[in-house]
Amino acid sequence: MHEFELINKYFSKLIKKNKYSLNLNDDVFFDKSKSLIISVDTYIEGIHFIDFNYPELVIKKILRSSISDLICKGVNPRYYFISGSGNKRSFSKKNLKKLSKSLKQEQHKYSILLSGGDTVYSKTLSFTITTVGFSNKIIFRNKAKINDDIYVTGNLGDSFIGLNVLKKKIILNKTLKDYFIKKYFYPELCIDLTKKLFLFANTSIDISDGLITDLDKLINKQNFSYKIFLKNIPVSRNLQKLINLKKIKKSNCISQGDDYQILFTASQSKSRIIAKTCKSMGIKISKIGKICNSTQKSQIIDENNNKITFKNKGYYHTF
Amino acid sequence: MHEFELINKYFSKLIKKNKYSLNLNDDVFFDKSKSLIISVDTYIEGIHFIDFNYPELVIKKILRSSISDLICKGVNPRYYFISGSGNKRSFSKKNLKKLSKSLKQEQHKYSILLSGGDTVYSKTLSFTITTVGFSNKIIFRNKAKINDDIYVTGNLGDSFIGLNVLKKKIILNKTLKDYFIKKYFYPELCIDLTKKLFLFANTSIDISDGLITDLDKLINKQNFSYKIFLKNIPVSRNLQKLINLKKIKKSNCISQGDDYQILFTASQSKSRIIAKTCKSMGIKISKIGKICNSTQKSQIIDENNNKITFKNKGYYHTF
Repeated sequence: MHEFELINKYFSKLIKKNKYSLNLNDDVFFDKSKSLIISVDTYIEGIHFIDFNYPELVIKKILRSSISDLICKGVNPRYYFISGSGNKRSFSKKNLKKLSKSLKQEQHKYSILLSGGDTVYSKTLSFTITTVGFSNKIIFRNKAKINDDIYVTGNLGDSFIGLNVLKKKIILNKTLKDYFIKKYFYPELCIDLTKKLFLFANTSIDISDGLITDLDKLINKQNFSYKIFLKNIPVSRNLQKLINLKKIKKSNCISQGDDYQILFTASQSKSRIIAKTCKSMGIKISKIGKICNSTQKSQIIDENNNKITFKNKGYYHTF
Repeated sequence: MHEFELINKYFSKLIKKNKYSLNLNDDVFFDKSKSLIISVDTYIEGIHFIDFNYPELVIKKILRSSISDLICKGVNPRYYFISGSGNKRSFSKKNLKKLSKSLKQEQHKYSILLSGGDTVYSKTLSFTITTVGFSNKIIFRNKAKINDDIYVTGNLGDSFIGLNVLKKKIILNKTLKDYFIKKYFYPELCIDLTKKLFLFANTSIDISDGLITDLDKLINKQNFSYKIFLKNIPVSRNLQKLINLKKIKKSNCISQGDDYQILFTASQSKSRIIAKTCKSMGIKISKIGKICNSTQKSQIIDENNNKITFKNKGYYHTF
């Protein structure tokens, strides 16, 4: 069963009574009366990260992907809790030292504080990260307006290439290899953009499961469609190189998830302030398409003006 | 490595910067400026619960043990988040239905609301529960005073017998079997006592790992010892029967954990108000010993006035 179906079918009834929970229709919980935002995510070895050979990198990646949930909603994360389940090997002194050092660096980088958690023995290594922030407002899902432009921050696809380099499915020279692996382990979060989002974004989400999957989620309760232009989807110079060399097709790598960029929509009238924000902050924000009415189906348009579909729209957990 | 050593050695440095986290010296996180209390606990199949043959019971037990962390601190839990990791079998439609029904019952019983979470695929079944409450004060650990009486709510040991009945290590007739299994799956939380605790308790903890383990934890930063009288440790009539029949020794079953009763200390001057509270609320609270200075070692005294030690003081996770 599909993860979302599962949640909706069996647990939405329990949640609906709770007016603060956003009815599970956002990745975060928001209690406006307390200005409290909470997000909970679980990461399993072999599913969310390949292995634990580089604990210092894994912990950074999953912490960033956790706080990304808040950042994309316009909320600065303040506290985090880690519950780690693993065995002696995973939590060896050497690994713990590395984990501690990495967390310290991330705390400094993102102004967050470890505030508690749990450590338990388990055969399967996993981490559950709870992140907490405070704000009297957030940017919700499902608040897109007709004719809104669709924007995405940064570049997409680098992380997916990095994953495939690690899996030895893509062979590259050392420079490129190092570049993509770094992109896989260190998603670049737009934390400086967080509070600016309120100036222009109508609705937002972070891209964790894949561009199209997350775009679908972003407007899943709205009677809208979208039009996305493949050529406008931003990729790094290095990824463009691989595409030019026909090592990979653009359409096969820009909707695979793990990007942790912000996907948002904004009225056309906001294009100037968005451009200004990009410039003043030195941040890349790309207009990739627009929100349309539901008389037409959602479309992805390639360079030759043909409608295309992506093989993998993104990642779903199935049970 | 011992769970507490592990936490202290590698993560306390990260946490100390956070004046709100209680330096990991309490089971809950408390941000006084936001009146926010958070607790995170992870439960693994085969470690924290035997199996998932009765999902409707397991989920109740682990949810209760999670909110117990807040209740023993004088805080009413309000929100909870569940992150479930498991496979198709664990999260079958039949099981999800049972889980949903149980959670609904618990929400009603304890006035709590499911507010989010995560569901991911894993070979090992586990749940991480995050509980949230609001209060401008909590009862801390390590606030015992010299000569304080030591109290415990309810009865101890029933849950441990229930576990051993389930494991077929103790064979009983059907009535007793049903009684102890029920006690194992349905810890009775003193939620009505929560707010009253501020009237008399100097320091408190819930008994999850075992009476002695948790008593040690309660005063681990204080230069105190304690004297506990075995005969005063409260047990149920049914457990007393087993002890009388020499089926089990009292000292072997009242410090094994999973009781989720509240262990607290109070000044001797509070004994009257505690007795009054017991009576008016119909709650059992037993005086089991006292806090002493550190010139003598901590002692457990048996019925014959002999010093004894418990074989198992309680449960520790080791890595």
